[in-house]
Amino acid sequence: MTLPIETPAVLVDLDVARRNVRAFQDYADRHGIRVRPHIKTHKLPQMAELQLEAGAIGITCQKVTEAEAMVDGSARIKDVLITYNILGEAKLARLGKLNERVALSVVADNADVIDGLAGFFSPRQKPLTVLVECNTGADRCGVATPAEAAALARRIGNAPGLRFGGLMTYPPAGGTARVQSFMTEAKKLIEADGLEVPSITSGGTPSMMEAGEAPIATEHRPGTYIYNDRSLVARGVATWENCALTVLATVVSVPAENRAIIDAGSKVLTSDLLGLAGYGHVLGRDDIRIDQLSEEHGRLVSDGPIGLAVGEQVRIVPNHACVVTNMVDAVHIIEAGEPKAEWAIVARGRVL
Amino acid sequence: MTLPIETPAVLVDLDVARRNVRAFQDYADRHGIRVRPHIKTHKLPQMAELQLEAGAIGITCQKVTEAEAMVDGSARIKDVLITYNILGEAKLARLGKLNERVALSVVADNADVIDGLAGFFSPRQKPLTVLVECNTGADRCGVATPAEAAALARRIGNAPGLRFGGLMTYPPAGGTARVQSFMTEAKKLIEADGLEVPSITSGGTPSMMEAGEAPIATEHRPGTYIYNDRSLVARGVATWENCALTVLATVVSVPAENRAIIDAGSKVLTSDLLGLAGYGHVLGRDDIRIDQLSEEHGRLVSDGPIGLAVGEQVRIVPNHACVVTNMVDAVHIIEAGEPKAEWAIVARGRVL
Repeated sequence: MTLPIETPAVLVDLDVARRNVRAFQDYADRHGIRVRPHIKTHKLPQMAELQLEAGAIGITCQKVTEAEAMVDGSARIKDVLITYNILGEAKLARLGKLNERVALSVVADNADVIDGLAGFFSPRQKPLTVLVECNTGADRCGVATPAEAAALARRIGNAPGLRFGGLMTYPPAGGTARVQSFMTEAKKLIEADGLEVPSITSGGTPSMMEAGEAPIATEHRPGTYIYNDRSLVARGVATWENCALTVLATVVSVPAENRAIIDAGSKVLTSDLLGLAGYGHVLGRDDIRIDQLSEEHGRLVSDGPIGLAVGEQVRIVPNHACVVTNMVDAVHIIEAGEPKAEWAIVARGRVL
Repeated sequence: MTLPIETPAVLVDLDVARRNVRAFQDYADRHGIRVRPHIKTHKLPQMAELQLEAGAIGITCQKVTEAEAMVDGSARIKDVLITYNILGEAKLARLGKLNERVALSVVADNADVIDGLAGFFSPRQKPLTVLVECNTGADRCGVATPAEAAALARRIGNAPGLRFGGLMTYPPAGGTARVQSFMTEAKKLIEADGLEVPSITSGGTPSMMEAGEAPIATEHRPGTYIYNDRSLVARGVATWENCALTVLATVVSVPAENRAIIDAGSKVLTSDLLGLAGYGHVLGRDDIRIDQLSEEHGRLVSDGPIGLAVGEQVRIVPNHACVVTNMVDAVHIIEAGEPKAEWAIVARGRVL
């Protein structure tokens, strides 16, 4: 079926997205876990509203300018967690303004960041809520031990313009048990020091359906779950039918019997592999590999005749949905199989 | 040295870019090769003007909307080659309008594309110039043999609204000898058929300093040469001092003795590896590897103590400069070591 959309284009099936959001919200509700979706996947106020309507308590952003774009885009977004160490006068000024508009919280994993926040937020204004980021195995940011978490919690608690908001982690896939043990110990130390731990928030889509196995966590921040992608299908946590985001491309050349070139390259599909071979899955064509991308060309190869014609459209599930929505200015919204609207991706490219 | 620029940011040193452009223009002038730079690297009318001032005869774009943005951005851009198979009514309409504004040419590697162009461009309007794309070893687009090139040249020549413009190829690195042999044979066949071959255009930065070894080619289309990047340094065709584009980032966490996290991830540096290990080179720190990116975090690791502090800036040469300029809305222009301006990247994200 040919869609009346100029290619390459990013499509989002709203019916599938709604079902994906509902499925995790139901799981979280059953386990008493609050849901705070990460908007990095969609970057759209409209999708955040859909998540809030389903029961989410707020949103997660990674950068201050993402949060600004989302809050500007929807009056219904009133609670925002920025899971990032914020540094520098320019960003602190943005943060200060945002803190007056919504219930805002940020994280910190070191004393320099806390001291920067403490120096900016004075006791005369609304306090900024700060959580301590903990490393539960992803080895990215985060304090290494519960004792360090407790020391930073105390540092936040001692700053007159700040309020200690709890503990945050982004565990690796399969890291649920470590979340439980780390957070249990950290919470005990912090409470023994006379501080409350209002929230313990964990994240990630791959292990979200095990979130109930770390009951110490009060909140989960899935991102990709709303769209899903090839990496999640490969992990067995989604099927092609659960993939709401696809890339629509047109075959522009069939220069050899087993090779076709499409008009989507790394400027749409991106070079993210996430441990996979190839750059996406052509729906309905398990026999095709996308073995090479340049910026505007995607190369499709097969063992036998590729059976594609110049001008034909293909739909591709990308390896990683979140990065694809950063590549285009708008997504085409599909409902009941038909294009219904184009939504500008207002938080695209917001890296500051 | 700390630059007064909010991070992450993409910087372009204009002095280095000018020197890079001059160096290849001088080589091309000595060998009688016309230069038609590919704007995919910078996506900036201002940089195209710099290249035209140095002696370039026009520009190369990959997509129609890129060409539109460039022509809109500079009245001095009057000659544009789009090295892409253009298909579909929407794109043909764009092409028709652009053809009235500048000397425009496109390529085709199959009869369907030529017939689409021939059906749109009528003999009553200005003819569209079409070159035949040839595969000289990159195995992306392009006809496989000189005989096929000659057949398509005839097809273009027979279309009343089209004009045969010559032959185009994008060879792999080291493909110069194949360019010479393929194009020599194709030209002979086409001329024997009574058609002139006005232009033979080859491309690519890695082999540009061997372009003179394929004297059959009349034109070269380098892209990355204006900025250079880590992939070209790894190939030995540039040094760190020739790298005009860098990513400025701030250390936001030093969670372990040998690990630091910066505020630039795949949303700035991209996941392009181009065969390299790691995601970029930290200038002045050969001992550091950027071993992992997530969207907003870059992980720097070293064998010994990493010696970086929270709040410190680092400058990174990315693996692939062209894709980085697609990730941000503007670049910071540096002259004499100082930030001088911010230029909006007007052709960013133009994938149609």
